[in-house]
Amino acid sequence: LLGRLLITCPDRHGIVAAVAGFLAGSGANIVSSDQHSTDPEGGEFFMRMEFNLEHGDLDALGRAFGQEVGERLDMRWRLTDAGRRKRVAVLVSREDHCLVDLLWRQRRGDLDAEIALVISNHPDHRADVEGFGIPYHHIPVERGRKQEAEARQLELLRGVDLVVLARYMQILSGEFLDALGVPVINIHHSFLPAFPGANPYQRAFERGVKIIGATAHYVTEELDAGPIIEQDVARVTHREHPDAMVRLGRDIERTVLARAVKWHLEDRVLVHGNRTVVF
Amino acid sequence: LLGRLLITCPDRHGIVAAVAGFLAGSGANIVSSDQHSTDPEGGEFFMRMEFNLEHGDLDALGRAFGQEVGERLDMRWRLTDAGRRKRVAVLVSREDHCLVDLLWRQRRGDLDAEIALVISNHPDHRADVEGFGIPYHHIPVERGRKQEAEARQLELLRGVDLVVLARYMQILSGEFLDALGVPVINIHHSFLPAFPGANPYQRAFERGVKIIGATAHYVTEELDAGPIIEQDVARVTHREHPDAMVRLGRDIERTVLARAVKWHLEDRVLVHGNRTVVF
Amino acid sequence: LLGRLLITCPDRHGIVAAVAGFLAGSGANIVSSDQHSTDPEGGEFFMRMEFNLEHGDLDALGRAFGQEVGERLDMRWRLTDAGRRKRVAVLVSREDHCLVDLLWRQRRGDLDAEIALVISNHPDHRADVEGFGIPYHHIPVERGRKQEAEARQLELLRGVDLVVLARYMQILSGEFLDALGVPVINIHHSFLPAFPGANPYQRAFERGVKIIGATAHYVTEELDAGPIIEQDVARVTHREHPDAMVRLGRDIERTVLARAVKWHLEDRVLVHGNRTVVF
Amino acid sequence: LLGRLLITCPDRHGIVAAVAGFLAGSGANIVSSDQHSTDPEGGEFFMRMEFNLEHGDLDALGRAFGQEVGERLDMRWRLTDAGRRKRVAVLVSREDHCLVDLLWRQRRGDLDAEIALVISNHPDHRADVEGFGIPYHHIPVERGRKQEAEARQLELLRGVDLVVLARYMQILSGEFLDALGVPVINIHHSFLPAFPGANPYQRAFERGVKIIGATAHYVTEELDAGPIIEQDVARVTHREHPDAMVRLGRDIERTVLARAVKWHLEDRVLVHGNRTVVF
Repeated sequence: LLGRLLITCPDRHGIVAAVAGFLAGSGANIVSSDQHSTDPEGGEFFMRMEFNLEHGDLDALGRAFGQEVGERLDMRWRLTDAGRRKRVAVLVSREDHCLVDLLWRQRRGDLDAEIALVISNHPDHRADVEGFGIPYHHIPVERGRKQEAEARQLELLRGVDLVVLARYMQILSGEFLDALGVPVINIHHSFLPAFPGANPYQRAFERGVKIIGATAHYVTEELDAGPIIEQDVARVTHREHPDAMVRLGRDIERTVLARAVKWHLEDRVLVHGNRTVVF
Repeated sequence: LLGRLLITCPDRHGIVAAVAGFLAGSGANIVSSDQHSTDPEGGEFFMRMEFNLEHGDLDALGRAFGQEVGERLDMRWRLTDAGRRKRVAVLVSREDHCLVDLLWRQRRGDLDAEIALVISNHPDHRADVEGFGIPYHHIPVERGRKQEAEARQLELLRGVDLVVLARYMQILSGEFLDALGVPVINIHHSFLPAFPGANPYQRAFERGVKIIGATAHYVTEELDAGPIIEQDVARVTHREHPDAMVRLGRDIERTVLARAVKWHLEDRVLVHGNRTVVF
Repeated sequence: LLGRLLITCPDRHGIVAAVAGFLAGSGANIVSSDQHSTDPEGGEFFMRMEFNLEHGDLDALGRAFGQEVGERLDMRWRLTDAGRRKRVAVLVSREDHCLVDLLWRQRRGDLDAEIALVISNHPDHRADVEGFGIPYHHIPVERGRKQEAEARQLELLRGVDLVVLARYMQILSGEFLDALGVPVINIHHSFLPAFPGANPYQRAFERGVKIIGATAHYVTEELDAGPIIEQDVARVTHREHPDAMVRLGRDIERTVLARAVKWHLEDRVLVHGNRTVVF
Repeated sequence: LLGRLLITCPDRHGIVAAVAGFLAGSGANIVSSDQHSTDPEGGEFFMRMEFNLEHGDLDALGRAFGQEVGERLDMRWRLTDAGRRKRVAVLVSREDHCLVDLLWRQRRGDLDAEIALVISNHPDHRADVEGFGIPYHHIPVERGRKQEAEARQLELLRGVDLVVLARYMQILSGEFLDALGVPVINIHHSFLPAFPGANPYQRAFERGVKIIGATAHYVTEELDAGPIIEQDVARVTHREHPDAMVRLGRDIERTVLARAVKWHLEDRVLVHGNRTVVF
């Protein structure tokens, strides 16, 4: 059994010794370990450990950890079983490049997840998605009837661990996010905080920037303002009109989104306020 | 004599033929040529040609060009002599990395310019600058007495062809820019349009971006909003505090500024509204 | 009709004027123009022009160009009709990421080509390729029977304009290349000239490089030594084992290959000895 | 006192617990910790810890560590005092951009080192170096008298902790390296393993690569074959002749070298065979 322990707590003396000592004493062999402190004096401490557990189960280990270490050191922590694949739902509108890229990576074994379903406000991608053996749900979002659409989506999303917005062009309501209760990763087609909202490539063109980008972030109620997981960029010149930027941008968007999703699936991302620690 | 012809005009049939035909007929041998059209139908056309002129002078060539080609095709154009080095003034505050980089590049022969003087609101860099044989003028900018300082600066800047703000942390007034009458290039320590104004690295840290950048642009009256010449970026992680970003950022700033200045000196940059064409 | 004129010739006075004058006189309106000279004195001159031709046909234009300009200036030149989509064949072995990427780009309209057929020495990709409505030919290459396989391939490749090796792991013989008579683009999974030949990621790992890359090049008889069209790279650290490099490398390989193929399809690549000019 | 503990040992259960437990028990507060294992089963384990030690001294801590942990777990380890600045010697030939960059970074406080001396086989940089208050030694390396020159160098290099070859174009003999006994970092002006040895930019031009690079590595007896610390790259096109590559390359060389030197000074680099772990 490959387990992962993720910890956030106030930094203080002896954390590593306490955690590593506990795991060693429990027969867990640490395979990798990453840590970060915003400030050794009074800062926040983050840790990710992967360990092999040859005997015993994760639940018992977790209970013991909470009692012996977690409470004493004021930790928020979670234990995950790396062998349990997360269930992912993908939401998408018309542009299919991010969706298709996720489907192919999953099929190739690059994404350690089950893509449980795809939901779209357009019918276009049904054949492609079903060709991968994945259920496709067309839920139109009509003007003034968003609540209804979100209710249907919530129904379908029960039991998923992660929702990925792979160029889904509808804004999710705060009520929806609350009711959903699992992380949502979005890909935004600009180098945030530049050009949040609509038509970023058009606006990048008008501003005359020499580099365009894409940003994968956790979705919060405020549009394009959630914790950033990953960003990347590409050069443009005066030659690139907005439609050429759209084409170039697709390659960045799909790669940035795939990295962010992969890291999330591997429990590498810890959120700290509006920032992320990516181990 | 190596000449450069820079043209902006409405796009229409026959421009290249007219210009190339004129130059060939004048004994000018085209060495390099770049052109760009925002739209072949009704767009704006930009061109830069370098040519060898073995006999005759540039003034006569210019007069003939205006009469035979320029007026007929509604061109804004200019002819420059590549052999005439532009006179450059550098303005700088406390951070010296951009200043020093320009001085060294100039000494090494990478920048085809004469650095005529350096002006700073701090006395700190006198020895370094004078060590390069370049006059250093310390003009403090005291609260409420900016106009006075700008008047002294204008006096010193008479006759320069370009002003470079190499991390000069004072805002230039619109009156100053008007009176100056030559281009001003600024380096801003963020990836514009993200984080204009003060403390961009601190704000980048707070926003949790994964990439930081720098932007060289022509200065206009609106702060950090002028036409962008060049940008570049560097990756950061959760490990980089703002002071580490400042350090990393220096390497990007100096390189981006040097490229922009070099391209300007070689007459490669044409301004079109708030955008640039860089040949 | 959108035409393209591609020229290679010894550099000398008056080339641009002659070409632009001819096109203007023939009613062709130049839409874009790029040129390059290795040396204005005695070097080689390269040019690519796109033009609109409202009346007349390309063949007549070509005949006139040859007589009036081409012969006089010692040019190798060709005229292409941008509206005529090139016929492309893709050869692939087991790894499907480059193949799949080309298929999707083509379907999205990013590649101005018809993918006429796919040939593989493995049967694996039949369903995927046929799902795009493209014929799939499985031609095994057995030890000692390569000549036979190449003969079958040549049969199928009759009439194509370009062959793309999208991770095709067989070496093409010089006889095959001669008989084929059209350009072949290969993607090699290293930053050439580093690590030509087999297992580049394993060797990159062993050498301890900090950056890996991919190279798209025209195929010549010498393995991985043909003219390079495009390259790109990605950072790695001590953390990346060869299998992680393989995964990371896929994203670079598919993007580099797609760029090279797109540029070739748009007649942007001129070969000059073992180097390329990419306009 | 800020201490650093660097460990290489066979991977096995309980290493982190043993080390962290020892440090906690010794009153050392871990400030940062990085680790890497080439393989949790039978691989090599690497660790770097920074810790605050409020009472006691590093020597006593080291002795205790060796007895209680190091020997038992078969470790190669060293303890360094982060407050003790390393003494660095810079060797340089004609090109000054790497030298100058190191001098400025050191003066700005970016490099935690004392630059103790500069040695050159040319007299050119004396004024610049002495302007920084650093001794400059001109040791010509005449054909057939290299041994003599190396003997003089060794004399001067006694007591330094690191030698940096900042574009020093002489090959160091194996005898010299043995006698020197401290690490030597070289900057090579190509993307190794491509273009080792002389004239890499000329050869990159001839091969027609689209990206050039630089490599910082520890020097071993075999030319340009030692463990790589850092690499970086820049794009080139058909436009860049070798002299333009030289100019572009300078910016990469100085940055890559400065990063490698900085990481070495901060004890972030562990050598493992011909590869490096950079924490």
